[in-house]
Amino acid sequence: MIEKTKSSKKIYEGNFISFYEDEVYLPNGNTSQRVVLKHPGAASILAITKDKKIILTKQYRYPIQKISLEIPAGKKDHPTEDGLTCAMRELEEETGYQSSNYKKIFTFHPAVGFCDEVLDIFIAYDCEKIEKPASPDADEFIEVEYIERSQINNLLKSGAITDGKTIIALQYYLLHE
Amino acid sequence: MIEKTKSSKKIYEGNFISFYEDEVYLPNGNTSQRVVLKHPGAASILAITKDKKIILTKQYRYPIQKISLEIPAGKKDHPTEDGLTCAMRELEEETGYQSSNYKKIFTFHPAVGFCDEVLDIFIAYDCEKIEKPASPDADEFIEVEYIERSQINNLLKSGAITDGKTIIALQYYLLHE
Repeated sequence: MIEKTKSSKKIYEGNFISFYEDEVYLPNGNTSQRVVLKHPGAASILAITKDKKIILTKQYRYPIQKISLEIPAGKKDHPTEDGLTCAMRELEEETGYQSSNYKKIFTFHPAVGFCDEVLDIFIAYDCEKIEKPASPDADEFIEVEYIERSQINNLLKSGAITDGKTIIALQYYLLHE
Repeated sequence: MIEKTKSSKKIYEGNFISFYEDEVYLPNGNTSQRVVLKHPGAASILAITKDKKIILTKQYRYPIQKISLEIPAGKKDHPTEDGLTCAMRELEEETGYQSSNYKKIFTFHPAVGFCDEVLDIFIAYDCEKIEKPASPDADEFIEVEYIERSQINNLLKSGAITDGKTIIALQYYLLHE
C-alpha cells in the first residue's frame, strides 16, 4: 500500500510552514503527484475552570474568513517541542489561565490528505486565572468565552462551532466526563 | 477582530490545491503575514451496513507516511459540487456500497490556521453492496475494513485511528446513535 518518494520539490519555505510537490511511486509501480504542507505540529487544550465552565477563545481565522470559537491552541515553537509545554503556554497566553491537573486525550492528524501536522489535545481541570499572564503573540486578537457542558450539543448542532479540534475535544467531554 | 487583505501572492497552483502568501491588516492597523492553502472542499461518510457494521477504509497517506483507518472521503470535483453527491461517490468508489437513507451530521473546518477547506460528514444507514460499483481513482489503493460500535472506544484510545474527520464521526456515533 505504501507510496515511495521518487522526487521532492520544495515550492515554499515560510516562517513555520513549508510546501512541497512530490512525485511518488504507487504500490503498482506507476507514479503520481502528492502535495505536502509541512507543519511543526501544534497543541490544544480543553480547559475547565473550578466551577466547571469550559474556556473557549474567539478569534478571526483568516483562511476561512470567519470568527471562530475554539479551544485554546497554537503551533509548536519547533517540531521537537513537548505538546504539553505548547498547550499550557497557549492556554496562559490566550486566556490567562493555568492548571496543574491535566492529561492528554488525543494525538491526531487534522488533514491527512495534504498536511503532516500532528495535533495534541489535552484536558485541564481546575483551571485558575493567574495575576500576570504572558501575552498572546503580537498578531493574535483573542476574546475569551465561557460555555457550560449543557450548551455543547446546541453549539455543535447549530454550526456555531466548526473547528475540527474543538469538535473532537467537546465530544470527548460529553462522552467521558 | 477582522483581518483584511493588503496583498495576496499566489505561490502555487496545482491540480486541486493552490497556495497563497498574503499580507493582512490586523485589527490594530499593523500588518502581518498569513499563508492560505485553497482547497475545493471535501465530503466524507460514516457508513453503516444493515447488520450495524461500520465501513472504514485503510489507505496509505503520503503526507503523514502512514497507513490510516478512516471513514470514506474525498475531494469535491469542483468547489460547487454538492457534498452529498461527493460523499456517495466516494462511498461507492472506495467501498462498493450505496445507501438511500442518510443525513448530514457535520460541516466543519479541519485546519482553520492555514487552510480554507470545508468538510461535510454524512451518516448513511442500511448500506448495501452493489454489483458493479464505480472504481476508485487510478492513484488510490484502498482496503475496506468493518468495525463494530463496541470497538470504537478502543480504536480511538489506542491511537489506531488518528484521522480528524473519522474521530468526529465515530464520537458522534457513540453520542447519538
